[in-house]
Amino acid sequence: MASSSLSMYTVNNGLRSFEPSLSSLSKCCCLHPNATIRIMQKNHMRKLLQKCQCSSIGLEKSSSLSTGKSFQLDDVIEAQQFDRDILTDIFEVAREMEMIEKNSSGSKMLRGYLMATLFYEPSTRTRLSFESAMKRLGGEVLTTENAREFSSAAKGETLEDTIRTVEGYSDIIVMRHFESGAARRAAATASIPVINAGDGPGQHPTQALLDVYTIEREIGRLDSIKLGLVGDLANGRTVRSLAYLIAKYKDVKIYFVSPDVVKMKDDIKEYLTSKGVEWEESSDLMEVASKCDVVYQTRIQRERFGERIDLYEAARGKYIVDKNVLNVLPKHAIIMHPLPRLDEITLDVDADPRAAYFRQAKNGLYIRMALLKLLLLGW
Amino acid sequence: MASSSLSMYTVNNGLRSFEPSLSSLSKCCCLHPNATIRIMQKNHMRKLLQKCQCSSIGLEKSSSLSTGKSFQLDDVIEAQQFDRDILTDIFEVAREMEMIEKNSSGSKMLRGYLMATLFYEPSTRTRLSFESAMKRLGGEVLTTENAREFSSAAKGETLEDTIRTVEGYSDIIVMRHFESGAARRAAATASIPVINAGDGPGQHPTQALLDVYTIEREIGRLDSIKLGLVGDLANGRTVRSLAYLIAKYKDVKIYFVSPDVVKMKDDIKEYLTSKGVEWEESSDLMEVASKCDVVYQTRIQRERFGERIDLYEAARGKYIVDKNVLNVLPKHAIIMHPLPRLDEITLDVDADPRAAYFRQAKNGLYIRMALLKLLLLGW
Amino acid sequence: MASSSLSMYTVNNGLRSFEPSLSSLSKCCCLHPNATIRIMQKNHMRKLLQKCQCSSIGLEKSSSLSTGKSFQLDDVIEAQQFDRDILTDIFEVAREMEMIEKNSSGSKMLRGYLMATLFYEPSTRTRLSFESAMKRLGGEVLTTENAREFSSAAKGETLEDTIRTVEGYSDIIVMRHFESGAARRAAATASIPVINAGDGPGQHPTQALLDVYTIEREIGRLDSIKLGLVGDLANGRTVRSLAYLIAKYKDVKIYFVSPDVVKMKDDIKEYLTSKGVEWEESSDLMEVASKCDVVYQTRIQRERFGERIDLYEAARGKYIVDKNVLNVLPKHAIIMHPLPRLDEITLDVDADPRAAYFRQAKNGLYIRMALLKLLLLGW
Repeated sequence: MASSSLSMYTVNNGLRSFEPSLSSLSKCCCLHPNATIRIMQKNHMRKLLQKCQCSSIGLEKSSSLSTGKSFQLDDVIEAQQFDRDILTDIFEVAREMEMIEKNSSGSKMLRGYLMATLFYEPSTRTRLSFESAMKRLGGEVLTTENAREFSSAAKGETLEDTIRTVEGYSDIIVMRHFESGAARRAAATASIPVINAGDGPGQHPTQALLDVYTIEREIGRLDSIKLGLVGDLANGRTVRSLAYLIAKYKDVKIYFVSPDVVKMKDDIKEYLTSKGVEWEESSDLMEVASKCDVVYQTRIQRERFGERIDLYEAARGKYIVDKNVLNVLPKHAIIMHPLPRLDEITLDVDADPRAAYFRQAKNGLYIRMALLKLLLLGW
Repeated sequence: MASSSLSMYTVNNGLRSFEPSLSSLSKCCCLHPNATIRIMQKNHMRKLLQKCQCSSIGLEKSSSLSTGKSFQLDDVIEAQQFDRDILTDIFEVAREMEMIEKNSSGSKMLRGYLMATLFYEPSTRTRLSFESAMKRLGGEVLTTENAREFSSAAKGETLEDTIRTVEGYSDIIVMRHFESGAARRAAATASIPVINAGDGPGQHPTQALLDVYTIEREIGRLDSIKLGLVGDLANGRTVRSLAYLIAKYKDVKIYFVSPDVVKMKDDIKEYLTSKGVEWEESSDLMEVASKCDVVYQTRIQRERFGERIDLYEAARGKYIVDKNVLNVLPKHAIIMHPLPRLDEITLDVDADPRAAYFRQAKNGLYIRMALLKLLLLGW
Repeated sequence: MASSSLSMYTVNNGLRSFEPSLSSLSKCCCLHPNATIRIMQKNHMRKLLQKCQCSSIGLEKSSSLSTGKSFQLDDVIEAQQFDRDILTDIFEVAREMEMIEKNSSGSKMLRGYLMATLFYEPSTRTRLSFESAMKRLGGEVLTTENAREFSSAAKGETLEDTIRTVEGYSDIIVMRHFESGAARRAAATASIPVINAGDGPGQHPTQALLDVYTIEREIGRLDSIKLGLVGDLANGRTVRSLAYLIAKYKDVKIYFVSPDVVKMKDDIKEYLTSKGVEWEESSDLMEVASKCDVVYQTRIQRERFGERIDLYEAARGKYIVDKNVLNVLPKHAIIMHPLPRLDEITLDVDADPRAAYFRQAKNGLYIRMALLKLLLLGW
């Protein structure tokens, strides 16, 4: 997204009115005969609108049309860009994605589209999930597992220059970067959609979406959820994003269960309070598990402890999800985990139908399919 | 393959009866309407059978039907799982693969299928061969050239957890691993087919299959073969597997020609004797070559000699296939080599029509096409 | 290209008469019934011609037919293989490539074809450009980002053996290598087309083609061009190749603007003089810019200066393209750069319509699409 439209993006939740028809645009603008082949690309449309002096149309969010939603998702940069309504719409598309059969017309909807996976640090799991999503819809992929080599680290090129080159080769960019804010910079430069697949300690919005989608899919609702967040709550961006998003729903209660050294930080606690979300800290995993709809376990990240292996070992063994936890967990509840896991969930839990973490990973596929569809084809 | 069915697999050569029709299954089981899209996946079928209390059907191997073979290949884990009949059937399919033309219907038979190449150690040659095979049949590929980064080596995830994630993204897994037995563990976990593309010093079954296929393709038969195995017979898993498989045929004679430090080990010799296969050791390559249908040369692997470069150099230069060997080699015979080669076959041999090693590499493509077809679509 | 035909290649600009029809060939040769599936592969055709004792036909270059050009591009190895007429023809095809729309029949012309990108050193930019080109035409790709691992560096295999294996898996090889001359060796071995994507300090012919194409596309002509080459003229293979190719056109004037330590070498100066091309050296970038149609800026390569960081810093800051240069640059002129850039073009230049470097990068896509089409399907 061009920087000039960043403000619009912020106020408008990444949505843009898509009202004016292509033919009316063609009439009021001086269009190159080839323009239609790129008309789905976001900035082209925006620039055309500006050229026509009718850009004000682009700032109003109108109601849904019978033929589809009236807005357009430009980029996926951070969990904060999504509100309740958009989440509902995205999840509806994700459900459709679950139903797509091999060699059906749905499985060809992105035929002819090319996705570039620009990974400045390796993350095979996330990369495979996006690439599978693109290919399940008939699209094609250009892969860069180690994009650092043609970046500033290697020859001193800026991220912006790299993006300007790669956007010439592809229709959408999925980027993973080691620097917080890199995805936003890329989106501000690119004339094609950008999806943030994690930028450093910053955001990993598709993980946040798949987590919320999994709760809705498994429990059947998002209001009135009792959620236990367990493990490394200080460093885990997944639990922070999940707390942020679930606060958009009514009558939510959150329990934080973590070793003292990795407690949930105050910013999220204050945010929850400001939104009227009830939360409490607990050191009794069994008691929490007996009351929750969702127990979200996370890995204690060794790399955060530096030399203090003793602290790491103490923290790591403190809250384990095992058969004892299953014994008190309600029948309808689920265990979630962003994966990979070490031993914070014991292997004997896997066979229990309430162990939802591998289904959760699979839901990432459907969420990413939905986002690719929405960014490239619209609603 | 789920561990519960491992025993069936062992007794039954990796085959499984496929008699009950999908429609009869649908009737006796409570099937999700989407179930048919996954019905080809092995464990789904097996689990359905178990649900129906009719799993005993699955244990009987019945004769071929007019519409196809009555069994199903689940995984490709080790050379030992193949008997003469299965080899004959696979080779028949491989021959069909050789005939597939660009843009014919055959070249689209795996359209919509996704193969994950999960390589825990690099092997570009093998990876390219599998990926070419998949794409020649219209399938798509997810590539991980360095899967270690999302494995235990990196964050401590088990192979089983990785497999459970990757099986959510793909329809078949081709795995290379540094640990013997890893492929069997993966297959025991996965609900989709797994092909072993080499696991450490253990198995590399598709290489074994392509070697036998090459002999049949070039010589025209597998019974009454005289086979000279030359070079590193102690460490080369290809010659060990080949000796194992060729022993299934009648009237076979094997000559071992190798430097003393890398002689064929006793287990294979004893196995051959127990199967009634004649074998002898020889230090005269010329004499052996003059009597053989196939001279199978291998590379002396420097890495096996550690500090003893002197021993390596002596072993390496001892048995070279050159013009002199060609001069005594029968007109109908062939030279094979698993590649890469150093100087154990001299370059002036390449132009001779009996130099079959590049055709042998190409046959790997057809064998892998055949296996992908059989694992994903059945016979 | 087989070595036996290398001489023909040299005298004949990489072209080969393609007159005799396949049916007449089939009649005079003993053809395997499957031969037609490979008939587009260059050496097969050449070998058929030789078999027929009618190879002399192959040495005459005849005029265009109404149904197409009468010659065939075998490999793309070096800038020198292209003359004015071939450049005109390639550019015509590149223009057609620009017009190809998503899901049109043109976007499927290489369906069923497989390109192997064999990169012995990383070059993500070039690799992505080729892979995008192949996929934009419906073809498929086998990727090796680090081909060294199955080359001489790893186990001692020769480049020739690697090529003989890879040609069994693919229909065309795009190779990047660290050794000058490697692409020619690969082409001499391969029976399928080879494109040089850069071989060490040697050639990078597709970059040279896209540079000339960009001038023609942006300025509208190639005769009577005034060209300023700026920056590292000693080491930059792009400016050397561009000077070489532009010398094929009439009434060309070249200005060399570079720090003393990286001046254009005498071989190119002498070549230009021999071709009647006017050239001069200048230390006044402003004056040169005011007279040029094209200012071609390049990066000063730090790695060429070793320990002498002081010399590098002095050279690097000497000639910068900035707003001041834009102020004197003619309205119709353009700024080019092979990318990546550091600060030799300031960021405030980017928004000027005369900043052509990102369009130039995009033109690389069209040139590569054109070459893939010509090598695989002919004219």
